[in-house]
Amino acid sequence: MDKLLVIKAGGKLLEDAPRWKALLRELATLPHPFVLVHGGGNRASQVTEALGGTPKMVDGRRITTDLDLEVALMVYAGLMNKQLVAWLQACGRNAIGLSGADGNSILSEKRPVLEHDFGWVGDVKMVNAAFFSLLLKNGQTPVCCAITHDGNGQLLNTNADTIAASVAKSMTAEFDVSLTYLFEKPGVLADDKDDSSVIAELTHSMYELGKASGQFHSGMLPKLHTAFEALEAGVSSVRITHPENWKTGGTVIKA
Amino acid sequence: MDKLLVIKAGGKLLEDAPRWKALLRELATLPHPFVLVHGGGNRASQVTEALGGTPKMVDGRRITTDLDLEVALMVYAGLMNKQLVAWLQACGRNAIGLSGADGNSILSEKRPVLEHDFGWVGDVKMVNAAFFSLLLKNGQTPVCCAITHDGNGQLLNTNADTIAASVAKSMTAEFDVSLTYLFEKPGVLADDKDDSSVIAELTHSMYELGKASGQFHSGMLPKLHTAFEALEAGVSSVRITHPENWKTGGTVIKA
Repeated sequence: MDKLLVIKAGGKLLEDAPRWKALLRELATLPHPFVLVHGGGNRASQVTEALGGTPKMVDGRRITTDLDLEVALMVYAGLMNKQLVAWLQACGRNAIGLSGADGNSILSEKRPVLEHDFGWVGDVKMVNAAFFSLLLKNGQTPVCCAITHDGNGQLLNTNADTIAASVAKSMTAEFDVSLTYLFEKPGVLADDKDDSSVIAELTHSMYELGKASGQFHSGMLPKLHTAFEALEAGVSSVRITHPENWKTGGTVIKA
Repeated sequence: MDKLLVIKAGGKLLEDAPRWKALLRELATLPHPFVLVHGGGNRASQVTEALGGTPKMVDGRRITTDLDLEVALMVYAGLMNKQLVAWLQACGRNAIGLSGADGNSILSEKRPVLEHDFGWVGDVKMVNAAFFSLLLKNGQTPVCCAITHDGNGQLLNTNADTIAASVAKSMTAEFDVSLTYLFEKPGVLADDKDDSSVIAELTHSMYELGKASGQFHSGMLPKLHTAFEALEAGVSSVRITHPENWKTGGTVIKA
């Protein structure tokens, strides 16, 4: 089977253009297809503030208000997505920017209101593998922002790690898929105060132990959860690493 | 040859969601493919103002500053484009939103600085007909915003009428193409103060006479110019009309 890399990038380290461009230049030289999934950045907070919005939280978790969704569409689906596509085109890679509504590529449902209403947040229901396949086979590089739709006209904010894992899982029937998460740390750390404590290989039992002991916590837990889910669903390899070391560095997740 | 409609919509009349949805519902029932090109709206001015920008003019014409381009990407390529795509999906029409960078669909070049520098404005150089054809043949409805790219990583603001005419012209080898411009008037008016003076059929000689006499002026002149160019390039018919009368109303442009 042909190789396919699904790579998720975003976060603080990719907020400046030169870093993004350096990463895109390297990705553009890959001899096999890839899908880029990008998260947000600081610009969304600046725009929300300028438009008079204030972050709304419940139990320490962010709610997506009407204005937050508008700004996500503006900054992620518009400004950021189109800039990344134009930069990839400049590197000679024919890219196409997608929200989940485009080509009905990712269908989601609004997170049900149980204890809390998280607002316009969607959980992935279906990835349109046939559409991604059509694009990839025609030499297109999909660039996905973290926006999905519910099929009834409602756009929804969706976690970028989950989108990357969902796309990776959906393509395993046709491709030998690897999944890479880029973030601001050099990898999964044994001690999150020590950047030199990168775990080179993380097995499922190490994950279970670290989860129970509190060694892994906050944002790392859902990231690792989606990583192991992807492996179980047939993704060949998962790597969590820093953008400057994206090919061979960081932590490899083992089933 | 199969029929294809290229329809450009925008302007004041389409600033509220119910009007857009009504138009999209009707378009979604068309038995043949179409391409939707959309202009901007008031939201861009609001966002620009909130971000501290002020419109810059030269000789009565708007310049696209760095901030104006950012806001165009946010509001046209992001907010508006994704909402239109999601609404079309809800009508059962598989739509895909595009800037000119996506799939390298529309390549432009920055308008040369002669007397004035209009900023980040691009003039269309090439439409990627093969890419539009691939999408159309796979049941996709392209939804184009008025943003193009120069192939070197620079996104550019581009006139939506010109984009619609350029796409229409580029598809004539494969389709029997008609082009429709929607705007706030009931059609091309003989007397622009009298909404009942719609010219049902406008020939090229009538256009030349009206241009010389000043009967046609301001924004109508470039619109009519692109309309006649489209007819010369093989587009079957061009209509200029109001959204509520888009199928049969307004003015038909005759070669």
